[in-house]
Amino acid sequence: MIIVLKPQATKEQAEELLARIAALGLRPLYMPGTERTVLGALGDERVLESLHLDGHPIVERVQAILAPYKLVSREMHPHDTVVDLGGVPVGGPHFTVIAGPCAVESLDQMRDTARAVQAGGARALRGGAYKPRTSPYSFQGLGREGLAILREVSREFGLPAVTEVVEVGDVAAVEEFADAFQVGARNMQNFRLLRALGQSRKPVVLKRGMAARVDDLLMAAEYILAEGNPNVILCERGIQTFETATRNTLDLNAIPVIKSRSHLPILVDPSHGTGLRDLVAPMAKAAAACGADGLLIEVHCDPATALSDGKQSLFPEQFATLMRELSPFVSAAGKTLT
Amino acid sequence: MIIVLKPQATKEQAEELLARIAALGLRPLYMPGTERTVLGALGDERVLESLHLDGHPIVERVQAILAPYKLVSREMHPHDTVVDLGGVPVGGPHFTVIAGPCAVESLDQMRDTARAVQAGGARALRGGAYKPRTSPYSFQGLGREGLAILREVSREFGLPAVTEVVEVGDVAAVEEFADAFQVGARNMQNFRLLRALGQSRKPVVLKRGMAARVDDLLMAAEYILAEGNPNVILCERGIQTFETATRNTLDLNAIPVIKSRSHLPILVDPSHGTGLRDLVAPMAKAAAACGADGLLIEVHCDPATALSDGKQSLFPEQFATLMRELSPFVSAAGKTLT
Amino acid sequence: MIIVLKPQATKEQAEELLARIAALGLRPLYMPGTERTVLGALGDERVLESLHLDGHPIVERVQAILAPYKLVSREMHPHDTVVDLGGVPVGGPHFTVIAGPCAVESLDQMRDTARAVQAGGARALRGGAYKPRTSPYSFQGLGREGLAILREVSREFGLPAVTEVVEVGDVAAVEEFADAFQVGARNMQNFRLLRALGQSRKPVVLKRGMAARVDDLLMAAEYILAEGNPNVILCERGIQTFETATRNTLDLNAIPVIKSRSHLPILVDPSHGTGLRDLVAPMAKAAAACGADGLLIEVHCDPATALSDGKQSLFPEQFATLMRELSPFVSAAGKTLT
Amino acid sequence: MIIVLKPQATKEQAEELLARIAALGLRPLYMPGTERTVLGALGDERVLESLHLDGHPIVERVQAILAPYKLVSREMHPHDTVVDLGGVPVGGPHFTVIAGPCAVESLDQMRDTARAVQAGGARALRGGAYKPRTSPYSFQGLGREGLAILREVSREFGLPAVTEVVEVGDVAAVEEFADAFQVGARNMQNFRLLRALGQSRKPVVLKRGMAARVDDLLMAAEYILAEGNPNVILCERGIQTFETATRNTLDLNAIPVIKSRSHLPILVDPSHGTGLRDLVAPMAKAAAACGADGLLIEVHCDPATALSDGKQSLFPEQFATLMRELSPFVSAAGKTLT
Repeated sequence: MIIVLKPQATKEQAEELLARIAALGLRPLYMPGTERTVLGALGDERVLESLHLDGHPIVERVQAILAPYKLVSREMHPHDTVVDLGGVPVGGPHFTVIAGPCAVESLDQMRDTARAVQAGGARALRGGAYKPRTSPYSFQGLGREGLAILREVSREFGLPAVTEVVEVGDVAAVEEFADAFQVGARNMQNFRLLRALGQSRKPVVLKRGMAARVDDLLMAAEYILAEGNPNVILCERGIQTFETATRNTLDLNAIPVIKSRSHLPILVDPSHGTGLRDLVAPMAKAAAACGADGLLIEVHCDPATALSDGKQSLFPEQFATLMRELSPFVSAAGKTLT
Repeated sequence: MIIVLKPQATKEQAEELLARIAALGLRPLYMPGTERTVLGALGDERVLESLHLDGHPIVERVQAILAPYKLVSREMHPHDTVVDLGGVPVGGPHFTVIAGPCAVESLDQMRDTARAVQAGGARALRGGAYKPRTSPYSFQGLGREGLAILREVSREFGLPAVTEVVEVGDVAAVEEFADAFQVGARNMQNFRLLRALGQSRKPVVLKRGMAARVDDLLMAAEYILAEGNPNVILCERGIQTFETATRNTLDLNAIPVIKSRSHLPILVDPSHGTGLRDLVAPMAKAAAACGADGLLIEVHCDPATALSDGKQSLFPEQFATLMRELSPFVSAAGKTLT
Repeated sequence: MIIVLKPQATKEQAEELLARIAALGLRPLYMPGTERTVLGALGDERVLESLHLDGHPIVERVQAILAPYKLVSREMHPHDTVVDLGGVPVGGPHFTVIAGPCAVESLDQMRDTARAVQAGGARALRGGAYKPRTSPYSFQGLGREGLAILREVSREFGLPAVTEVVEVGDVAAVEEFADAFQVGARNMQNFRLLRALGQSRKPVVLKRGMAARVDDLLMAAEYILAEGNPNVILCERGIQTFETATRNTLDLNAIPVIKSRSHLPILVDPSHGTGLRDLVAPMAKAAAACGADGLLIEVHCDPATALSDGKQSLFPEQFATLMRELSPFVSAAGKTLT
Repeated sequence: MIIVLKPQATKEQAEELLARIAALGLRPLYMPGTERTVLGALGDERVLESLHLDGHPIVERVQAILAPYKLVSREMHPHDTVVDLGGVPVGGPHFTVIAGPCAVESLDQMRDTARAVQAGGARALRGGAYKPRTSPYSFQGLGREGLAILREVSREFGLPAVTEVVEVGDVAAVEEFADAFQVGARNMQNFRLLRALGQSRKPVVLKRGMAARVDDLLMAAEYILAEGNPNVILCERGIQTFETATRNTLDLNAIPVIKSRSHLPILVDPSHGTGLRDLVAPMAKAAAACGADGLLIEVHCDPATALSDGKQSLFPEQFATLMRELSPFVSAAGKTLT
């Protein structure tokens, strides 16, 4: 329920109402604006009837939130949210490119790749220390050592670091070493992990699961916001379909759908989304064209030797070319390459 | 099998070779170029061994076609094909927009819509006279009367007409009244219809089936080319997935995949591809950005009264706005709005 | 709309009411029963109001049909339909097995296979003369010659013949030579073909499309019934999913769903449904267990030499074993192997 | 790599070979049999060449494991594995039914349900204390209190308890209170959780993810076995497809596929697999018919009041009827209702 207060309502009156909402067992929300204040009440809305809000002297209008998600919905929060990712803005008028290797492999590899992606125009660095791999016999990431390398290189180049967290027990370590958490597709509905990240205030890049509908993704984001962390960045990375020409089917339709339903920023990962190096550039441009807020791109200083996902990683010069060619698409979409 | 002849090979020598290919039960193809001539041999390539082509005095090199489709593949025909759709080019450097209502409903409706789409910048007119509908109790199209209306309005506005054909028995009538055939998603593997269209020389807009892989679409196109009609225009229009936010999942990944595998032009239909009016503009821009050769868009002079697909048809003013906004995306993709 | 008449209603009164229904532009249906007569009215039900049926002296009750399909729905026709397939019953208490090769290849092949499937216990013979193949370069069937072979062998062994029809122009020929039409998955929404088959009275085995929901299949069947042919036998044969271990995903859930929504018999084709010989027997048993009315199974006298689908065809001895093992499952499901 | 030793090989010789395998950085496996001993070597098999096993005096034959999973594959372990679930056997000749409510709600609810499922013939009790729910505002389970209730009722009725674990941090608690872990579809690729469960020796019921291919499920199981826990029971519970008549599409094809690729037992969950109460019985019978080793079924003493998944829970009398009707299908499949 959204409760729009009249312009003359005082802060005290609002707080009194919030206290009564809380007393009914609902979760109160306080959202002051420049012209008028909006209150929220999350939970079983039927109990609100006893407050008689319709005739309440300071209430202008009461509005149900129809979406199953509340905090995440655009009904609740009509303006685009801009998330601060270690000093780099994501969302609103910005188009932000985060690039780097699939996995942190060594200090040299991260330095060479960071240099390349910075030269190309990326504003943040990605790289996984904990790698969820289909096979137990594949490289699983460097773990804590990888986090330390990422931190060092991130500072050296002034690029905020984004890295995946796969387990509640690692949240503290990742929070210490990185500027933003990434939740992978396989963990999108690891609700315990989402709750733990909701306790942090660092941004969370939440990737859509391979069998998740757009509304499932928004419900997963709601878990994080409901715990108090508003800094969620969504990410489309491909869904499972019958098509075998691509590893996944990047679903760009999700971008305008999400933009209409939620105020959260949404990135596109054309590397995992297609699984094919040659498709990264065209799909990156298409993502910019249909309104995405940025990209998550795999770049490796030497893809042929990459320990994971080499087939979909761009060569440094390919990344530089993509960034040059991307610029007019971003402008035509009314955004600015951050 | 592709057989590249030496520059000095004469036409007579080529014809003699073609005759020997035919004598082996293979299908011979003659593809003269400016610098050298290329021959093709379709069928069981093992029987070719008896020709000893490797050491043949006029043969420069012999190359297997790896793709299951031959005439459609880029291996066979490395340059982009440009199809002439009633005077309007489709493919290559051109970006072509075909617009109009889902169904021909009346002379007035077609005139009003044709005026609007022409003003907006469309170069060809679409409109169905035979409508494949899920329910036998839904409007099934005006049939021959609809074809006549389409022809009249098409001539009046100088916009070539594209209309769906659903049955071998209607091919002659549609050929008489329209400038191009359209084969709908449900008929993509109606192989008898494809063969019949291969006997014509009018262009065929072949839509991808809802459960068809990219390679299935290319094999369907091969049916038409194999009968002798090279004028095929492919069209991506959404596939079936688990996502319910959109009616279909428009698969833009297919565009760069098809561009790499085939020389045929590929359009995108964001109207059927998403089923939602608000998604047509963003997905149209994304289609331009990732390399499509044009769009097939549903526009209705009065969508609220449309007899079919009103929910996804653009209002005339929405179409005009889309065309204005589309222009920089087309340019950035290196194409020209035809 | 279903209109249940009172027991005392005479035939004349019913006919008068049907005439008034027709006069309103609706399609009247006459369904006499042992205890009382039921009338149907298909079309825009709002116009029925002018008949004031609620207070009509011979009308007991009026009931809307909620399903989008009418003639096909169990609401309209609560009892199981039993279709007569050239003397062999399909549906109701019967479990009917139709077997044979994918394609008619020669008289010898059909004879050898017919002998084997009859010995195993099949009651009807399948075999395609017109083969819809993904590639134009694959074997496309023997056509009319194949029909003649099928007819001859069918008569010789006393097994009714089922064969695919792919085109309106072939309906007459297939009707002449076969006891039942088969509509393949790729033609499930070839509505013109469905209408043409609705003009016949021979049974139609209608296979589910690879991207068709259960309700799409039932709507396709409605096309045939709406034209006057009530002899439709549905067939589940696998849908497109992301799973690659099987060629298609046989969706047995569809069997009980269809049983609850429609009165038509439903067969299962585990050969196409899985694409793997080793899966035919277990999935055939599962089909019997969940309520299917029979099976469509590919058997070839020599699968290694089959011109199509050899990988999924059973050897004669495998078919015999399957039929033996199937029997207790059919009994446990409350049916009788016909 | 599988290394089959000659009958006369001694244990000392085998151990010496295992030590050399380990020294090469591969993982050695010791699998003594009644007639001869088999050794395994997991990892990069190329390094094994230096051992010259082909000519080794105690080696009979060396065989590569082609599947990407090793310990899980039938190549490695040709006989069916029977897992001991708190005294109840799962796999091999047994057909085992585990039943209970979706969530533990109260002591009374568990007692009433346990009584009903035991009367019906279930041999183990299910019930979730930690519920992964799509919405953060839905009932999330009773947590530790729920585990305690489950334990008490499980002991009272002598039914081993199976319950879901969603987080590494809960593994110890669940191990203390339950006889088997359940890993839900959303956690199938929570690899850290799988590793933690691999450290236990209690059975793990591993459910297939909604977008997981059969091979992804087997690779997930490999994570658990690779850590040393051989007691894995697989479970098919429906995949995501375009069909909307059912909540998920229960993929029974997976049963015979898994049986051919792996020695692990496989259960079917028709409750989640279809999401519809009326489909549970027919799909349970179909599961038995195609070779499943048992069922996981939701039964609630009062489905109308269930806090989750009431729509798919059986009433006690429905469960009793199902168990009675199931029996001949289990027998026909060559198994015994345990």
